[in-house]
Amino acid sequence: MPLIECVPNVSEGRRTDVVDRIVQAIERVPGARLLDRSSDASHNRSVITLAGEPAPLEQAILMLFEIAVAEIDLRKHSGEHPRLGAVDVVPFIPIEGATMNDCVQLANETGAEVAKRFQVPVYLYEEAATNPGRKNLADIRRGQFEVLAAKMSQPEWAPDYGPSTPHPSAGATVIGARMPLIAYNINLDTDRLDVAKKIAATVRFSSGGLPHVKAMGVALEDRGIVQVSMNLTNYLETPIFVVFDAVKCEAERHGVAVLESEIVGLVPAAALVSTAEHYLQLNAFTHGQILEDKLRRV
Amino acid sequence: MPLIECVPNVSEGRRTDVVDRIVQAIERVPGARLLDRSSDASHNRSVITLAGEPAPLEQAILMLFEIAVAEIDLRKHSGEHPRLGAVDVVPFIPIEGATMNDCVQLANETGAEVAKRFQVPVYLYEEAATNPGRKNLADIRRGQFEVLAAKMSQPEWAPDYGPSTPHPSAGATVIGARMPLIAYNINLDTDRLDVAKKIAATVRFSSGGLPHVKAMGVALEDRGIVQVSMNLTNYLETPIFVVFDAVKCEAERHGVAVLESEIVGLVPAAALVSTAEHYLQLNAFTHGQILEDKLRRV
Repeated sequence: MPLIECVPNVSEGRRTDVVDRIVQAIERVPGARLLDRSSDASHNRSVITLAGEPAPLEQAILMLFEIAVAEIDLRKHSGEHPRLGAVDVVPFIPIEGATMNDCVQLANETGAEVAKRFQVPVYLYEEAATNPGRKNLADIRRGQFEVLAAKMSQPEWAPDYGPSTPHPSAGATVIGARMPLIAYNINLDTDRLDVAKKIAATVRFSSGGLPHVKAMGVALEDRGIVQVSMNLTNYLETPIFVVFDAVKCEAERHGVAVLESEIVGLVPAAALVSTAEHYLQLNAFTHGQILEDKLRRV
Repeated sequence: MPLIECVPNVSEGRRTDVVDRIVQAIERVPGARLLDRSSDASHNRSVITLAGEPAPLEQAILMLFEIAVAEIDLRKHSGEHPRLGAVDVVPFIPIEGATMNDCVQLANETGAEVAKRFQVPVYLYEEAATNPGRKNLADIRRGQFEVLAAKMSQPEWAPDYGPSTPHPSAGATVIGARMPLIAYNINLDTDRLDVAKKIAATVRFSSGGLPHVKAMGVALEDRGIVQVSMNLTNYLETPIFVVFDAVKCEAERHGVAVLESEIVGLVPAAALVSTAEHYLQLNAFTHGQILEDKLRRV
């Protein structure tokens, strides 16, 4: 059974009763498992994490739209976080027994159904994007809800599904498929913030470093040390161990030691297994050799 | 639900019909999952791997005894592998949500029931051993079935459960609890067998090396290289990465590089996760952060 994660972001972080009703609607769908929910009042936004097989996930997202489109009016919405719609963004993420292709297909099916049922225009992003200019969420969302009508009047911003003008109150929605994201930090045995910033600039993709790595240097004031704080957006193409080795090597060039690293939140098992394979120089290892995996398949 | 593995070794590797009936009897127990079976004619022995919760495992082992005790006569048995009984050895191994203590308790319950139902004397070994002289299987089995009656006449070899003399045809059985074993080999970029043998002697416990490590140096003739071939009998106390680093360090002292390593057969996920933690210098990591684990618990 293919297992997919889905992390819808909804533009409501203050009215708890609305978010409660969305969550309850999701929980009523058999096979859709709620993993987490968190609301931020200053962002005025809620992030919901669920998992399941494709069919129940699509069903859960449609239930979410039904309440969000009825309850959230972007014309009256304000918050610190950029947003384009009542349901702002819906990524599908392959976890186990599911491919990226499965997630792209699910994004398309869900997007088509959302457009049909709720008359909300849908843009496909990341791996589901239909052209390179729509790969990055930030590009699609630039200008936010407030400029959406003007933006959609340009032919290049015709949506992938649904009407060619924004939904009056619910705006537009971005749906897509992406890899799981790993929040990964490396702490350095120094208080020199310039070193952390230089290393971050060396390893992050946007300034010529490793693909799928976002990085910044920050000070951990209370501990008197600095940190290279990163998001790894594709651990298959740029594994954790490549990032660790790159940061360690750069730190050594500055005469600084790596104190420790940390994974914030969740990490796919495969990212850790491939790390063990790398450092042990494991040859011909397959995931079928993992005892627990084998037990689950019998 | 505690998950335990059990690997009974039965002294029959030639009469396929007998082994078939044993396997079928196990498969009829609800909740006992057969993972593997393999028979060796020259050893005249079969190794069966099953997994499940404690109650169905005990039930499956009793079914196995019923057939093995009726069908296998050690007085007419010959084979290359040392053996003490028709059912020779039954280790219980903690996998997930089960402690070593759970396995020791299961070994005791199963041993008591085997003794009562089949009048077969039972010795407890490894973590279930009732005194240090019974920890090692080889010590209990020394002299094999042929000297068992004489051995049992000595007070120090009174069994833990059951009669004080061997079962006439089924001998005695060794039941216990142990950690999962990892078969781990490291290949060296040299054809010098003396180097592999020296490194094996340095890292194995029996000649003063690392606890829970058995090692020997062997030649891989067809590839023109040598290998340090190992069994790791407790990966929690002596992790894979400690063994890898020790062999690599010793190899460097001989001017030899590590070519690759390999895990033969199954490995617990935790052994790979702790390896990733070690090399990434991960701080404050918990297994609850593994995405798939979290999904399974929701």
